[in-house]
Amino acid sequence: MSPTPAGERATDPVTARSSARVIEATDRKRRGVALEPAEIEGVVADYVAGRIPGYQMSAWLATVACRGMSTTELTALTRAYLRDGRRLDLGAVGVPVVDKHSTGGVGDTTTLIVVPIVAACGVPVAKMTGRALGFAGGTLDKLEAIPGLRLHLAADELVPMIRTVGMVITGQSADLTPGDGATYALRDVTGTVESIPLIAASIISKKVAVHADGLVLDVKTGAGALIPDQSDAVLLTETMIALAASFGLPTRAVLSDMSQPLGPAVGNALEIRQALALLGGQRSPGLWELCAAISRLMLQSVDPELSDEAADAMVDRVVTDGSAREMFVRWAVAQGADPAALTDPGRLPTARRRHVVTATDSGVVSGIEPRSVGRATLLVGAGRLTQDAALDHGAGVVLHRRVGDRVGRGDVLAELHYDDGDADAAVALLAGAFVIGDGTVAVPPAVHRVF
Amino acid sequence: MSPTPAGERATDPVTARSSARVIEATDRKRRGVALEPAEIEGVVADYVAGRIPGYQMSAWLATVACRGMSTTELTALTRAYLRDGRRLDLGAVGVPVVDKHSTGGVGDTTTLIVVPIVAACGVPVAKMTGRALGFAGGTLDKLEAIPGLRLHLAADELVPMIRTVGMVITGQSADLTPGDGATYALRDVTGTVESIPLIAASIISKKVAVHADGLVLDVKTGAGALIPDQSDAVLLTETMIALAASFGLPTRAVLSDMSQPLGPAVGNALEIRQALALLGGQRSPGLWELCAAISRLMLQSVDPELSDEAADAMVDRVVTDGSAREMFVRWAVAQGADPAALTDPGRLPTARRRHVVTATDSGVVSGIEPRSVGRATLLVGAGRLTQDAALDHGAGVVLHRRVGDRVGRGDVLAELHYDDGDADAAVALLAGAFVIGDGTVAVPPAVHRVF
Repeated sequence: MSPTPAGERATDPVTARSSARVIEATDRKRRGVALEPAEIEGVVADYVAGRIPGYQMSAWLATVACRGMSTTELTALTRAYLRDGRRLDLGAVGVPVVDKHSTGGVGDTTTLIVVPIVAACGVPVAKMTGRALGFAGGTLDKLEAIPGLRLHLAADELVPMIRTVGMVITGQSADLTPGDGATYALRDVTGTVESIPLIAASIISKKVAVHADGLVLDVKTGAGALIPDQSDAVLLTETMIALAASFGLPTRAVLSDMSQPLGPAVGNALEIRQALALLGGQRSPGLWELCAAISRLMLQSVDPELSDEAADAMVDRVVTDGSAREMFVRWAVAQGADPAALTDPGRLPTARRRHVVTATDSGVVSGIEPRSVGRATLLVGAGRLTQDAALDHGAGVVLHRRVGDRVGRGDVLAELHYDDGDADAAVALLAGAFVIGDGTVAVPPAVHRVF
Repeated sequence: MSPTPAGERATDPVTARSSARVIEATDRKRRGVALEPAEIEGVVADYVAGRIPGYQMSAWLATVACRGMSTTELTALTRAYLRDGRRLDLGAVGVPVVDKHSTGGVGDTTTLIVVPIVAACGVPVAKMTGRALGFAGGTLDKLEAIPGLRLHLAADELVPMIRTVGMVITGQSADLTPGDGATYALRDVTGTVESIPLIAASIISKKVAVHADGLVLDVKTGAGALIPDQSDAVLLTETMIALAASFGLPTRAVLSDMSQPLGPAVGNALEIRQALALLGGQRSPGLWELCAAISRLMLQSVDPELSDEAADAMVDRVVTDGSAREMFVRWAVAQGADPAALTDPGRLPTARRRHVVTATDSGVVSGIEPRSVGRATLLVGAGRLTQDAALDHGAGVVLHRRVGDRVGRGDVLAELHYDDGDADAAVALLAGAFVIGDGTVAVPPAVHRVF
């Protein structure tokens, strides 16, 4: 007789073997041993099924993030994410459908802009989208700011929505990539976001499950990107293009600038307003150039003969004549949005309090640190710091200046919108984000490279 | 108005800042940036206070295990483990007190043997001890197999116990090193055990809190050691000696062999029986040589003039005349043990089932893989695979052969003792652990080096 009876968890063969496998895999991976494909698929399947706890999975993910993965391991991880997942059949739409993805950044409102533009040009778009990751916003979180909008469509609603409206944006359905769904949220809150294999497997598994006829990737580079270093960002882009190709998905990409926040709005409802304004013709510098470049690639991805000039003219027309904005509103209303919130964006969630950050010196803005701006929004609840945190959709930041702008002492640089949270710390981060110099400044291009 | 109200967790300034700090620290550490001492102390303090969840702490620990730590970071981590901890005052004993520690291994019953030997030689020993880590056993788990034994003494019981009996063994008190206590259990179940800085800070923080007059470390090397590679084990030894010295604690060490299980018994009650048998004069090869070497260093650590020969003679005498075994029994009874369980070890917990593993070929045992033996015992509940698992104190393995032994086909190599659990997998691991060759075999020494 043992004084402490053997616990169920210690001797249940299934959970015992699962825990033993992930502990072993973490230890071996740290020691530089390549993991077997079956081992990778087993660890992910165990976490999905709840046979291993979060603290074991996060240690495994952190170790993979440190040690990297071979092509064989990466393909296995992508397959593991897709395992037991449903596949969409976009063939039923009858014409080629295009998809896009951004690696995310601060003030990156592109999805909300390029999807209606491309759809208004007559090319259907199917976009499944996710939540914020790290200090970068997520399209799903942003869209939840629109009252009434249904973001979790049933599987059989997608094709009819595309055929009727021309576009669909819906929350990433966990049943497409069960493995990715389970690990994505955990990576976000454990500092294991910045990893080429973890990012590549997460993105490409979701895109393979949707399997449109063409895919355009927007990979960010610069201080506010998931992968700041430009040569690493190129490696991530090439890794994803090759990985997608190995699953039969033709893919193009832009390498775009995230050395400063992309658009002037950072925060959920603030970015919805920004998208509506841009689609209505207010072409904010930086954000507009990138949206135009992505839209062009999306149009060309289903019509490779289309010239750059012809594509640009189509994009310009649907913004100028208002049809892209109409597409956004028509789509949102078709998915249940309150039309009044879109025709009068004042009805979108609005934070009760403001705090203005002003320039303490005159000069030229030589840098706006995007991570500091992103973290400032997290501190007032516009993003998540723990896995189960709810968001304040009205909170965020509006930037009044971009890199290269001249400012006078006392000019407004940025405005914090907030209800609760650590506003003092957020304001300090915002003020520290701006670098004011006195010489001329090289303004970075919106698009560094096209693949 | 936001459709989803801001959650408490997202905007509570304390938990938000704590989570932001550990996420940031994990990310920066992975990118190779050295952490600030205040940052390390903050992360550990936050975890101790419950301000960050296990999945964040395990990702941080896994990242530290991958990336290592500088001397400055290591000293900060050790201080972080000691922060807000109580200190013992062994000065009240009135004579020098000695302490020991082993990095742990399979069948490593040394503490249960050397502490009563040294105490029987007249040198008081204060030993705080912990639970199993990874596939290696823990002295506290082993001692819990003794009915009635109190292993969580109050702070004011230690000095009287040492003065009355001559020795004390008690569970590592969480209030001495709150930071280490919280992280130790997490490392065990996340595959982040094998890390020089994490091991060094954990061990030395506990030893600094006890602060005996001399410390002897037993660092294992070989396949079954926490740090298998011999040059890494030397680095760990030198790291710990220097770290202890920086906190004013004089330390000696042995580098001992863990290329095969140390003693014939692996498992909690099985090792208690083994210790009693050895203290009673049954000098099992390997285990006995190591216990003699450690005992000698412990005696010399409070009497540097004592020659090797004189120390060895003292050790030999207390084993031969039975006084070391009497010391063990007197101590255990003083701490509440049922005397009958010690005079009749058949009363200790005993597993209901046995499975014998026999040789499929004749030859010479050229290897016994200690990790496989350790994992076999985990699968039957003698160790933990998840953080909250209870143990089966009767379960384990008895090895009938050592490296260098000649065996005939059908000879018993090992015996699995179990009640529940995955016995088939455990037997397969055990059978696979033995390598039978046909040539001569170099038998490894019990002690590789003395520091």
